[in-house]
Amino acid sequence: MEFKKYLTEQCAVVEHALARYMLTEEGPLANHIKAMRYSLFAGGKRIRPILALAAAEALHVTTDHLLPTACALECIHTYSLIHDDLPAMDDDDLRRGKPTCHVVFGEAEAILAGDGLLSFAFELLSHPDAQQGITPDAQLRVISIIAKAIGPVGMVGGQSLDLAAEGQAISFEHLRLIHGYKTGALITASVQAGAIFGKANEKQFAALSQYGTQIGLAFQIVDDLLDVEGTTEDLGKTVGADAQRKKATYPAFFGVAKTKVMAQEAVEAALTALEIFDAKAEPLRALARYIYERNN
Amino acid sequence: MEFKKYLTEQCAVVEHALARYMLTEEGPLANHIKAMRYSLFAGGKRIRPILALAAAEALHVTTDHLLPTACALECIHTYSLIHDDLPAMDDDDLRRGKPTCHVVFGEAEAILAGDGLLSFAFELLSHPDAQQGITPDAQLRVISIIAKAIGPVGMVGGQSLDLAAEGQAISFEHLRLIHGYKTGALITASVQAGAIFGKANEKQFAALSQYGTQIGLAFQIVDDLLDVEGTTEDLGKTVGADAQRKKATYPAFFGVAKTKVMAQEAVEAALTALEIFDAKAEPLRALARYIYERNN
Repeated sequence: MEFKKYLTEQCAVVEHALARYMLTEEGPLANHIKAMRYSLFAGGKRIRPILALAAAEALHVTTDHLLPTACALECIHTYSLIHDDLPAMDDDDLRRGKPTCHVVFGEAEAILAGDGLLSFAFELLSHPDAQQGITPDAQLRVISIIAKAIGPVGMVGGQSLDLAAEGQAISFEHLRLIHGYKTGALITASVQAGAIFGKANEKQFAALSQYGTQIGLAFQIVDDLLDVEGTTEDLGKTVGADAQRKKATYPAFFGVAKTKVMAQEAVEAALTALEIFDAKAEPLRALARYIYERNN
Repeated sequence: MEFKKYLTEQCAVVEHALARYMLTEEGPLANHIKAMRYSLFAGGKRIRPILALAAAEALHVTTDHLLPTACALECIHTYSLIHDDLPAMDDDDLRRGKPTCHVVFGEAEAILAGDGLLSFAFELLSHPDAQQGITPDAQLRVISIIAKAIGPVGMVGGQSLDLAAEGQAISFEHLRLIHGYKTGALITASVQAGAIFGKANEKQFAALSQYGTQIGLAFQIVDDLLDVEGTTEDLGKTVGADAQRKKATYPAFFGVAKTKVMAQEAVEAALTALEIFDAKAEPLRALARYIYERNN
């Protein structure tokens, strides 16, 4: 299948860039850097960087100058996983089939590894290499969009709401809010970062933002489904954890069958948003379908 | 005393700006924002923002456009205190005379409050208000300098080294390295941010950077001294904590008397670095002396 090859190739591009930009385990800071690298190179699917690259491609732009930004998105995603897994948060011992950062490096170092990755992401976002791909103005816009997406009124706020909602009876509206902040915001920002590097006009930017919102939604619905239907082997993390924690999920609200339809509808809406683009948006289209079909 | 008045006035400027830029406790995210605000408005001395403002002033520049950046420095400082105080780190219950964030809001929310403040700092650093004070290029430089100063090869790395060194026999060279990363880097970056808003030329930037390094050093030496000589009442945190944790400190290496001389020498070096500036650098000079004389 053509798309599998695309995914493998883009994943390799991202891995290569991460290896190039990430600090190496040398000198007195070796242990701290080791902890960051442990989680960063733990076999992630690199969806967010690939989305950024694919969004630029939809606008006929392929540029290595997008790579520091793409890597920053993965650093941010990894930091969020490390902190979410902490004993004080979701207390998960397993992630991507490997012991979580705090299990291997201890809680203090895991907190710092997350903090380090988050800070390092902004080093990458303001990296000279990035500035050659777009104007400084546009690069500041990328930084602003990403900072907002991952902050108090974004990813971090979403995690706070998610923890507060555990074991509580919450409305579906509140669940959507949590998902939007916790998962949707960074996915949308990833697509938007690519759109800015692709020099999107206003209409294109709005369409790509809408695409991002819809696949973010699909992503989270499928995550909820996988927690019910997946296997620990496929997921590399504990299955049924949501139910154990009495977390509100799509399947809990609507049952598995209707939830599947809702995920499909989100994917359809994402594809509709892409109608103004030509064949160069094929990878984005395939990514939307992939998010629905993935099993981990 | 003239300087006390200056400090009070500048502190009020920063408080006002923080109140203006910081999120308010509204809507579903109220609790998360409350946790951030609790620590941000816990009576900090606002040294880092004031240093940034004073550095610009030394270059004859007074601009409100520096305020988002100044606030970002305080958000970053506050996040670092919240995470340092966590049970998995220094496990401190008291900060600025008040219960620490995790004591009031729980460990999970304290981690998230720190994460939120760190992310929000980069919202402020890329804020449109900031961009009107300097060119987008210069603003990217500010972001890059601050991101590096607080990252793995900066503040976070320093905290990792500090934790690893507890109870260990370390060399004085290693202690200096830890201090430089953990405390010196952000203080230097604060001065440098102000220098960039002040449109410093290369020579001025180098002089201000040297000033920052030296007061950063003085600041940390005095911190070590206060842990030996201060009172819990003055400090608002537990005295003697370093000795209890068998932390390497300047007094442990050199005794109190020689340590005081070393702090004084760092202040002198900071003042020497300012020789190329006129009377507009008086606040910076007074700040250097203040750092030596402070009792909390």
